[in-house]
This record gives sequence, structure tokens and C-alpha cells, in this order.
Amino acid sequence: MKYKIAVIMGSDSDWSIMKEANELLLEFDLEPIIKIISAHRTPKDLEFWANDFEKNSIKVIIAGAGGAAHLPGMMAAFTSIPVIGVPVNATSLNGMDSLLSIVQMPKGIPVATVAINNAHNAAILAVSILGSFDADIFMKLKKYKDNLAEVSRNKKLPPN
Amino acid sequence: MKYKIAVIMGSDSDWSIMKEANELLLEFDLEPIIKIISAHRTPKDLEFWANDFEKNSIKVIIAGAGGAAHLPGMMAAFTSIPVIGVPVNATSLNGMDSLLSIVQMPKGIPVATVAINNAHNAAILAVSILGSFDADIFMKLKKYKDNLAEVSRNKKLPPN
Amino acid sequence: MKYKIAVIMGSDSDWSIMKEANELLLEFDLEPIIKIISAHRTPKDLEFWANDFEKNSIKVIIAGAGGAAHLPGMMAAFTSIPVIGVPVNATSLNGMDSLLSIVQMPKGIPVATVAINNAHNAAILAVSILGSFDADIFMKLKKYKDNLAEVSRNKKLPPN
Amino acid sequence: MKYKIAVIMGSDSDWSIMKEANELLLEFDLEPIIKIISAHRTPKDLEFWANDFEKNSIKVIIAGAGGAAHLPGMMAAFTSIPVIGVPVNATSLNGMDSLLSIVQMPKGIPVATVAINNAHNAAILAVSILGSFDADIFMKLKKYKDNLAEVSRNKKLPPN
Amino acid sequence: MKYKIAVIMGSDSDWSIMKEANELLLEFDLEPIIKIISAHRTPKDLEFWANDFEKNSIKVIIAGAGGAAHLPGMMAAFTSIPVIGVPVNATSLNGMDSLLSIVQMPKGIPVATVAINNAHNAAILAVSILGSFDADIFMKLKKYKDNLAEVSRNKKLPPN
Amino acid sequence: MKYKIAVIMGSDSDWSIMKEANELLLEFDLEPIIKIISAHRTPKDLEFWANDFEKNSIKVIIAGAGGAAHLPGMMAAFTSIPVIGVPVNATSLNGMDSLLSIVQMPKGIPVATVAINNAHNAAILAVSILGSFDADIFMKLKKYKDNLAEVSRNKKLPPN
Amino acid sequence: MKYKIAVIMGSDSDWSIMKEANELLLEFDLEPIIKIISAHRTPKDLEFWANDFEKNSIKVIIAGAGGAAHLPGMMAAFTSIPVIGVPVNATSLNGMDSLLSIVQMPKGIPVATVAINNAHNAAILAVSILGSFDADIFMKLKKYKDNLAEVSRNKKLPPN
Amino acid sequence: MKYKIAVIMGSDSDWSIMKEANELLLEFDLEPIIKIISAHRTPKDLEFWANDFEKNSIKVIIAGAGGAAHLPGMMAAFTSIPVIGVPVNATSLNGMDSLLSIVQMPKGIPVATVAINNAHNAAILAVSILGSFDADIFMKLKKYKDNLAEVSRNKKLPPN
Repeated sequence: MKYKIAVIMGSDSDWSIMKEANELLLEFDLEPIIKIISAHRTPKDLEFWANDFEKNSIKVIIAGAGGAAHLPGMMAAFTSIPVIGVPVNATSLNGMDSLLSIVQMPKGIPVATVAINNAHNAAILAVSILGSFDADIFMKLKKYKDNLAEVSRNKKLPPN
Repeated sequence: MKYKIAVIMGSDSDWSIMKEANELLLEFDLEPIIKIISAHRTPKDLEFWANDFEKNSIKVIIAGAGGAAHLPGMMAAFTSIPVIGVPVNATSLNGMDSLLSIVQMPKGIPVATVAINNAHNAAILAVSILGSFDADIFMKLKKYKDNLAEVSRNKKLPPN
Repeated sequence: MKYKIAVIMGSDSDWSIMKEANELLLEFDLEPIIKIISAHRTPKDLEFWANDFEKNSIKVIIAGAGGAAHLPGMMAAFTSIPVIGVPVNATSLNGMDSLLSIVQMPKGIPVATVAINNAHNAAILAVSILGSFDADIFMKLKKYKDNLAEVSRNKKLPPN
Repeated sequence: MKYKIAVIMGSDSDWSIMKEANELLLEFDLEPIIKIISAHRTPKDLEFWANDFEKNSIKVIIAGAGGAAHLPGMMAAFTSIPVIGVPVNATSLNGMDSLLSIVQMPKGIPVATVAINNAHNAAILAVSILGSFDADIFMKLKKYKDNLAEVSRNKKLPPN
Repeated sequence: MKYKIAVIMGSDSDWSIMKEANELLLEFDLEPIIKIISAHRTPKDLEFWANDFEKNSIKVIIAGAGGAAHLPGMMAAFTSIPVIGVPVNATSLNGMDSLLSIVQMPKGIPVATVAINNAHNAAILAVSILGSFDADIFMKLKKYKDNLAEVSRNKKLPPN
Repeated sequence: MKYKIAVIMGSDSDWSIMKEANELLLEFDLEPIIKIISAHRTPKDLEFWANDFEKNSIKVIIAGAGGAAHLPGMMAAFTSIPVIGVPVNATSLNGMDSLLSIVQMPKGIPVATVAINNAHNAAILAVSILGSFDADIFMKLKKYKDNLAEVSRNKKLPPN
Repeated sequence: MKYKIAVIMGSDSDWSIMKEANELLLEFDLEPIIKIISAHRTPKDLEFWANDFEKNSIKVIIAGAGGAAHLPGMMAAFTSIPVIGVPVNATSLNGMDSLLSIVQMPKGIPVATVAINNAHNAAILAVSILGSFDADIFMKLKKYKDNLAEVSRNKKLPPN
Repeated sequence: MKYKIAVIMGSDSDWSIMKEANELLLEFDLEPIIKIISAHRTPKDLEFWANDFEKNSIKVIIAGAGGAAHLPGMMAAFTSIPVIGVPVNATSLNGMDSLLSIVQMPKGIPVATVAINNAHNAAILAVSILGSFDADIFMKLKKYKDNLAEVSRNKKLPPN
């Protein structure tokens, strides 16, 4: 049975960014559960989904949002499942607004924030969380990183 | 019967800022309803209070919050009552985090944002909203502003 | 008789942003009064228009401006009608200059500031202000937000 | 007959900063005209004072303001006398709000902006403007700057 | 047997911030492993500690650092254990430098970043990660958050 | 005889911005003296040009520069002629670097700073400085501003 | 025998920026040693390369990196060879993240930071370091700068 | 014979920061040449000192300055000796103004910038530059850094 990771976002316009989380999770043979949940447009659904994720043994929630990005923080407020936030660059402020809205959470309710637009890293972080309890995934992640190293070492610079 | 204005804040530590809203509302003979509601610590209360405010004919909600300040935006998501947000300077970032978290709301769910720490102005704004439909309050606000002008004109500079 | 909302802007170059306020107001069957008023080029007109708006029972003023965006604040200085400010992204600073110029108003003279370039939200905020005193508009806004929720729930992600 | 320079500010709380302009102008034997004029509290006085300054042959207007600092820009809008703006550090944003509100003026209506809180430099700039047309003042300013150089050259570092 | 969480920091001057992580972990009956490891002063120790943490079944690494805060990112580079980064406000830039240095990690090597100076939240996040695989901890965290809610609901505002 | 205004810039790449100063000065029948002077590439020329400008009765110096924009400040250091600085947006930082490098001058050596890329306004400011001593220019500037007002009042919004 | 300068970067995507360092070094008849070394993907290689550079008498290391740019700082941690850091503009934050990550190094481990994307200047700085001990290179650099001055003096503005 | 390092600063108020450079240089048995040279107050001295430093075989120039910090860049413009810039936090902008003024130098004229207020690191950087050509200094710096490592490893956390 595969581990389930929720990948949620405030709007379908976030998909072009968030799909990289989906791809990485599939690459690690995990089961992404993809949902559009808007903290602002569907606030009454937040509690339902938080409960649903807990009932379905979701291990990690990856939440992407732009602007006054409340989705990751609100999901963290409604559940004790770890929440990873992806600040999406969606306004004229280059993602600084979403970064601060996601990372500056108050005492008691953290969101694990990754780089602006870096949904890929949110998925890697989810994998490393699973890896802390699942030796196979830990080894797989080690190999993934060894491979990153190898690719980096073999890079050739373009002829100049 | 007095108009009711909710004055809510995420934490009692915001009171030293938010009490200025309370004071101004009392000065205008309005009825402030003061509540501590934390979007992050008591997320399940948000919908209850939003409904409660609607049932009790609250005319305007003034919401203060610092850091990843989600309270004003979430209240705006749960109700159609106009929400005024007060960014509270509560972290090392001088209130820039709360300002962006409050003001950069997505299409459909605005928060009427005032200056950092300026709860007094949130109350003035609430008064001006009431004044749009209540001629007495409009006149009272005009007098208040005329008085501001008079005080300004009569200011003496300290001897130098 | 329809409620009147002034939609003013410093320059016709702001229209591509501000027209979204116009559209939303028409959608709610309100009467937008559109004017170009420049705080800097036509400062002597400010008082005239402020008085004109008061005489014509304008309920809310929506003011958009970029750069050292003084129009919303000056309009708020000249009248007690509530003023909603739309920071327009008009310089190399991504709208941060207009956001700060509009939102950081001093004690006594607030501007209800919305997100950068988000004239649509300025209009929603105006509607919610009207809704505080007009039950039909309140219900209409509730439906509008219910519809936002429905659209969000029915969104399908693009095939990936 | 001495040249007259207006030194205006939005509030008496700006005086601790603006008095340095006053002092420097007196040192150059000019005539400072000190006024508190608030763009936001006394907007209707702006035109009066602009006209008054023109009638009284004010050569330069020095205007200090903090936060959403509209006073320098509005004074520049109402008169063709050159306006020097002093961004006052008056909020949690370290004067960045007043700097941007003052300097980012639109085409046609410039404000000559100096450093945050540097009212002294506003006065020096006013002197240099007079010096362009008055050889005595030009020479006096040259001597002032020669003296700055001498003082700098003679500075001893504290024993360490 | 208790779960082990490494709590590392670049300098003993970070302890006044990082001790809050220690306290929270003890409150949850976990075993904090406290180390001073400087990415810049002891770079050759990084690999040793990364291996040591892996051998000792450390479940999560909490790393605090200020300025050009490289410790969390370098620890994440050397191990596949999840790393939580705490930006410490240690320079004149209010923690913005450490926040960006920690959060903006490249593809493949994420750091789970929490709010500036919020070591308490880093520990809560570590607890929630453990809770994803340990039902007792999950329940304990739920109670902790329920308690936060109760405390918030029972807060009285100071007499004003 | 026409008044002479120096329009200098660090590089010919600044010309696309600075030519707007040239155009406005010609429109006011003034004599622009255009020079490329780089504070960094030709530092030894600074004193020569400062002296040359003084000998040739240059009334105002307009200096544009980008990045670590030292030209306006150095010119102000070498001469007592008033210097107007135009921050040019020439790096990835949107002109914020040049704005701060130009405006934050120390006590004694001000630069009259205008908005980023707004060479047009530098020229208007130069005109207003001349206008303080030349009634014809003052009247011409008044007409120019009256015309701005007329154009603004006559603007039609595009059909929507 | 030519002096050797290492030019390293975190990723081949940095080459379009870093190649300008290569070109300038060749122009000065120095020997650039070009390597891709990722602090995050190949952290275990850092010590090897630091030692290798010391054994091979590398005089200066030029390191370019974007985002949470750890490469220059980590190289400075592993060796006593002077390290010049080039902040590469590689994320939505315009290079501000890499600038702060590179420049804000703690006591004891400096990185000589140049402007964002300015690899050319990193090479000039390396040349000037060599010039401090090699009179030929010093003279060559003087000529290079004299030439910059000449080119600047001979620049013609485009016809306007 | 000792190597000479110039340590210059714009004002004696910078000494409390710059003296740390002095101390470190003495610790390495180098000869600091301390001068107050203001780019803005004594611009005509810049060329003299640049020539003087060249004639006296100064190996490196360390220049500290705050605000619109032109001293490092101008010194780099006047000489080919490597210049290290120390941004001094001297205004309300937390040193961001001096950092950008120093680091964002144009093509051809670099300044080796270190962290805000970190004059100690400027001196370390100067030592490492000398170390590239002087094996004794290189070994001494290695020992200094080994000592930093030892001190870091031996740090005890305060009892908590």
C-alpha cells in the first residue's frame, strides 16, 4: 500500500507550479491526492478536508498558494498532519507576499515552507519525512540525491 | 439602538494596539463587540463567529493580526460583512509581513486594509461606512475631521 | 434608484486596471460614476469633486493610483465618504510604492486599501459596505460568494 | 531683504526633525517661514498656503512628512515654487513609506527629495538653489563646504 | 525508547532562541540532541555529524542560523533526514537575510523553513512529522492544539 | 541669453531615459549641456567638469545614474551648483539600488532626487528652480501645469 | 607561468553569467580553472576541491550562485584562498536572495561580494588582487581602466 | 617589513565599527594606515590619497561608509589597488542603503563587499589576499581559522 500525500492548491492557476510536486511523488511511487481547495472561496470546506485527510491517513499535506496565501496556514490550523507550504509567485510582488504569509506563522501552528514556486522541493521534503520512518524510501531518496550529485559532476559547460 | 462593530484580534497581545479602535468607537457612541478569535488556534470557531456576527447585525468587523496575519482574510472568507484589517507589527519584520498577508487578498474576497498598527483608523473607517447610510454619523464624522483641522491649525511648535 | 459609487483614477492609463471595478459594479446593478481626477495635475478639482460626491449621495469612492499615489488619501482628506484605494502597479517598483503611499495614512484619515491592481476587489468591498445596510445586496453578495465557492469546487485541473 | 524659505510639516511631531532645516537657514541669514500644514487634516488650506507662498515671494518650500507623506507632493501640485521633500521616519517601516510616497511623483509634478530625516540637507539644497542666482550665497555655501572639508580633515579618531 | 531530534545551531549566541525548541521537545517527551555546529567555522564537521545523525536514527534535524545562514541548507545537503530551518534574527536586516538564505534552496535539497526566531514552531513541526507515523504523538499534538484553542478562548483582555 | 542646465549621465545607455530631460528643457527654451561623465570610469574628470560648470554659469546640474549610482552625489560633492539626481533602473533591483545610492546623502551634501527613470521631472524641477528667480519662466511653468490640468480634465476613457 | 584563478558555479545554468569572468581572465592572460561544484548537490566534493585548489596554487576563487547561494560561503569556509562571490539572479526575487546569502557572512569567514550578475567585475577584482603583488598585472589593470576612461570620454550619444 | 593596509572611513562616527578591522590587522602583525577621508566632504582629496596609497605600496584598501556610501566605490575608481567595502549601518534603513551603494558597482570598477558592519571580516579578507602571495600569512590564517573551529567545538551552551 502506497503512502498518500495531499497536494492542494487555492486555484487551478497554481497547477503549472504544483504539478512538479505531483510528478516527483509519482516518481517515488507515492500516491498524490490532488485537490483544489481555496481558503478564501471555500473556507467552509477546510475543516471537512482536514478531517478527510486525517481519516484517510494522509501522511503529509503539500499546499501551494499565492498572494495573501492563507491555505497552508489554515490547513495547519485545522489538522495535526504536517503541512508543507509552497509560496506561489502570483502577484506583482514576486512571491514575497506569499512567502511571508506562509512562513511567518505564530507559535503553535507551523508551516514547513519551501522556496518560492519550488513545488518540486515540497515533494522532496515530503519524501524525506516518509524516509524518517521507512528505510526503503530513505534509501531511495539517498539514491536520488546521489544521482543529483552524479549529474552535477558530469555536467559539461556549453562551448564558449 | 446603537450600531454594533466587532473588534476582533488573534491574541490578547494585540490589545495594546486594538484598544484604540475600541476607544474611538465608544467616542462615536457605537457598540464595540470585542473578541479574541485566533484563525490559527481556534480555526473551528471562525464559522461560528461569522454566523454570530451576521445574526447580531454587526455592521463592520475590525480584525487585527500580526505575522502571517490570516484572521482578517479568513473572516472575510466566512462572511459578507465588510472586514477592516489592521496589520499589527508583531515580528522582526516591522509589520511588513502582516501588511502583505492582509492586503494581498485574491479576487472576490477583499479586506479593507489600514496602516500598520493604526487601529484608530480602522475605527474611523468603520464610522465612515456607517456614515454613508446614517446622516447623523456622517455629520459627527465631519465634525470630528473639522476638529482635527482646528487642532492642527492651532498647534504651536515647541520653543527651539 | 441605484446606489452610486464613484470610480476615480489619476490617469486614463489606470483604466485597464480600474475597469474591472466598473464591470463588477454593473454586475451588481449599481451605478458607477467614472472620473479621471489627478491629485497632482488637477489638485484644485479635488475639493469640488469631494463636495459633488457628497451632494450626489455617492456611497463609496473607489480611487486607483500608481507611484506616489496621493489620490485616494487626498480624497479621504476632503470628504467623509468612505474611500477605497487601489494601488496600481505603474512604476518599476512593482506597486510597492503605491501600496505604501495609499495604506500608510495617518491617524484620522483612513483609506480602505485593497491588493495591488485588484480593482475588482475594491468593487466587491464597496458592495459589502452597501450590503451592511441593504439586505438585498447582502444576499446578492452571499450568492456571488457561494458561486465563487461552487466554481472553485468544480474546477478541473488541466490534464497533465 | 532676506530670501524667504517656507519650512512646513504635517505635524508638530515632525519638528524634532525639521528644526534642523530652520537652524541651517538662520545660519545662512535667510528667513524661514515655519508652518504646520497637514495635507490630510487641513486639505482645504493647501491652496491658500500655496497662493500665500507665491504672493510672499517664497523662493523654496521645504516640506517634511512621514508615513503616506502627501504634503510635499500636494504642495508641488498647488504651486510652481520648487518643493523639497523630507521623508520623516514616523512609522514602523523606517521611513521607506515616506521616501517612496515623496519621491515617486508622476510626470509633471516633481518633488526634490532628500535623505530620510535629513532636514538639514533640505536646507542646504535650498541654499544652493538660491546660490545659483545670488553670488554671495554661492560663495557662502562654498565656504560652508570648505569648512566641512577642513573639519573632516582635522578629525582625530578616538583613542582605541 | 524516545525519538531523537537533533537541535543544532551555528553559535552559542543562537541558544536564547533555540532553547525554545529544546523545551517543547522535552514537553513532548522526546530526546533532543543539542549541538553547536558552524557551517562556516567547522565545515569539515558537517559530514561527520550528518553521518552520526543517520547512524543514531535521528528522526528530524532542527537547525537554527542567522545572517548568511548556511547551516540548515548544508545539513540538508549532507543527509536525507528532514531538516527544519529556523532563521535567527542576528544582523541589522531583521532576519530577512537568514530567512532568504534558508528558504530559497534549489531543486532537490529543501529545508522546511519556519518563521524568524520561531524555534518553538520548529519543534512543533518536528512533533507533527513524528505524529504522522506515531498515533500517540499525533494524539498528544492534537491535545496540545486543543489546549491552545482553550487557552485562546479563555483569554481575558486587560481592563482598559 | 538662455539659462544653461547640464544634463550628465554615467553611460550612453542612460540616454534613452535622460533624453526626456533634454526634450523638456528645449521645450522651455533653455540650453541643455549634455555630457557623459562616469564617476567610476572617469573619476579624475569630475573636478574638471564641476569647475567648468561653475565657470560657465550652469544653473542646475541634472545627473542620471543606475546601480551604485555615485555620479549625482559626487557632482554635488565637487560643486555648490544644485544637483538633481535621476535614479536609472539599470540592474535587476528595479532601480531601488540607484534610488538609495542617490537619495541617502550625508549631512552637508544633498542631491535633489526625483522618481526612478523620471528624467522629465528632473527637468521640470530645474525649470521651477529657475522660475524662483525669473518671472517669465515661473509663468511659463504655471501655464505648463495649467495645460497638464486641462489635458487631464479632457481625457476620455477608452470605450469599454 | 600563468596565475590560476578558479571560476566555479553551482550549476551549468550559471554559465551564461559566469562566462564573462572567464573572458576577462583570458584577456588578462590568466589561467581560469572552470568547475561546476554544487554546495547542495555535491557537498562532499567541497573539501576535495578546496584542498585541490590550495595544492594547485589557485590564487583566487570566483564562485557564482543563485537563490540560497551557499557555494561562495562554503568554499570560503573550507579554504583560506580569497573567495569572490557573484550573486546570480536565478529566482523571482531579482537576486536579492543570493546577494544576502553571499554577503552576510559571519565573523571570520568573509566572501568578497560583487554586484548581482556581475561576473565580469569578479574577474577584475581577482586581477586587482594579483596586481597588488605583480607590478605587470597592476600596470595592465591601470591601462585597462585608462582605456575604460577613454572609451567613456569618446562615447557619442545617439542622435535624438 | 610589514604589509600596509589602508583602513579609511567617511567619518569618525564610523570608527566604532571600523576599529575591529584595525584590531584584526594588528593581530596579524600587519600595518594599518588609518585615515578619515570623506568622498562627499573632501572629494578633492580622493585622488591624492589614491596616489599616496599607490606610492606607499598599500596592498589593500578597506573602506567603510554608511548611507549613500560612495567612499569605497570612488576609491576603487581612483586606484587599481583592491578595495574592500564595509557597509556601515548609519541610517534608518538598517544598512541596506550602504550595502546596495557599495556592492552594485558597474562593470570595470568592483568593490569587494563584506557584510553590514563587519569590518572584522574586511580585515580577514585583506589577510587572505596577502596570504595568496605570502605563505607565512596563509599559514597564520589557516591557524586562525583552525582556532575558530576549536573554539566553536568547545563552546558550552549556557545552563538552561
